[in-house]
Amino acid sequence: MKNFNKYPPKDKQPKIQKLKINLFGYHAVHEAWLNPDRKIKEVYVTDKAIENFEPYITKAKALGLNRPDYQVVERRQMDKTLGENTVHQGIGIFAEPLPEMNVMDLIIKASHKDTSLFVMLDHVTDPHNVGAIMRSACVFGLDGLVMQTRFAPPLEGVLPKVACGAVEHVCVALETNLSRALELFKDNGYTCIALDEHAQKSIGALGQLKKAVLVMGAEGKGLRPSIKDTCNETVKLPVTGEIQSLNVSNAAAISFYALGAG
Amino acid sequence: MKNFNKYPPKDKQPKIQKLKINLFGYHAVHEAWLNPDRKIKEVYVTDKAIENFEPYITKAKALGLNRPDYQVVERRQMDKTLGENTVHQGIGIFAEPLPEMNVMDLIIKASHKDTSLFVMLDHVTDPHNVGAIMRSACVFGLDGLVMQTRFAPPLEGVLPKVACGAVEHVCVALETNLSRALELFKDNGYTCIALDEHAQKSIGALGQLKKAVLVMGAEGKGLRPSIKDTCNETVKLPVTGEIQSLNVSNAAAISFYALGAG
Repeated sequence: MKNFNKYPPKDKQPKIQKLKINLFGYHAVHEAWLNPDRKIKEVYVTDKAIENFEPYITKAKALGLNRPDYQVVERRQMDKTLGENTVHQGIGIFAEPLPEMNVMDLIIKASHKDTSLFVMLDHVTDPHNVGAIMRSACVFGLDGLVMQTRFAPPLEGVLPKVACGAVEHVCVALETNLSRALELFKDNGYTCIALDEHAQKSIGALGQLKKAVLVMGAEGKGLRPSIKDTCNETVKLPVTGEIQSLNVSNAAAISFYALGAG
Repeated sequence: MKNFNKYPPKDKQPKIQKLKINLFGYHAVHEAWLNPDRKIKEVYVTDKAIENFEPYITKAKALGLNRPDYQVVERRQMDKTLGENTVHQGIGIFAEPLPEMNVMDLIIKASHKDTSLFVMLDHVTDPHNVGAIMRSACVFGLDGLVMQTRFAPPLEGVLPKVACGAVEHVCVALETNLSRALELFKDNGYTCIALDEHAQKSIGALGQLKKAVLVMGAEGKGLRPSIKDTCNETVKLPVTGEIQSLNVSNAAAISFYALGAG
């Protein structure tokens, strides 16, 4: 039987080799590249993205950072690795995770500050939402993010892309027991504020707080009762429209502003 | 030459027929279904999604709405129509666009109100961002959204999905000339507020405004100078962190809250 196909059959075509990438996109890679705490193993850049990346190579050298040489790859190799619809902007790296922290580490790190704000996410698992929340947390200078170990999305891939580099600046603590973490915050002078659409009090009525933890649940489900009950205050956002439910990252951004982190 | 393949070749396989869908997802479809201004032509539901949809059929009947019967389809038909990665939740419709409005229509519609807030987007073209902004605009009871005709994403597909039904409640005006639209707002007692990261004044310093239009540009680019210059005020959000740029939908949500629409 003769093969009349112009091209060799699919299994005989040279395979596009997949790359080793866990962070991609301009902002995510550039911020990781300049983060002294981030160990970077591989760097892949397309022809088009090199020019944009070169200033960061110079900056890293000036900072004395140990960084590998970049490998020039084809766009389709990155598409193949990350999926056709992924916006990677022609740059990707493989980096080790940042050093692990717990809530006590975060509290100590912020102990010299007059005012301090943390956000705790109770079973918010969507990486887009967590990434967007980290971006806003970074913009408003929050001292960190706390999530439950088993319900935290991985801090790689789409999350850092959406976070636009904020994963390099916002400290993250993963804890097995969030109620216990809240108790620790309270013991250290923090007011724990549950955001709940059924609350009586509006977030604006809280007044200025020196040290606070904003505690948020997933859209729809909201906070688990055990978590809500551990908080000192329960507040809502003042909504009026025909649809009452905000996207969780938008609710977080408003709360950061309302709690005066800005 | 004999064909040893078990299945007929791809071009001889029965084709999965594409459906006619321009709105999909629970919230987007449910809100459209109950909107008397929305003419609906086709409704497709998967087996799994019927139970969830049936209360809306009853509600529409009670409201005397003229709605077509639903067609039960297979999940893969919807996947094929909308793309494998689209979260359609097993429900999709084909609906006519909502009646067109212009800025004067919006101003007249809100003229009986004591306080009124609009948002204008200058070349914000990403449907995810515009959808998210419409969702927050609806939650905070805004009176409408203004965009430039040539730079507005279509109000179908992913935008209404992200907006979670808000496209049925937030009035949209498309205008060819946004500066002229701002002049019309000003002539009718509105204060036009440009959001700009380089502004001196913080949004919180504006005080309570009875009638305002919040004017926002795209991330990175910001507002076009001609639009900014037409506004009465230029304000920024009070940001402090290592990354200064908020996602545009998060910036919008904060501004709606800060301008007291809640």
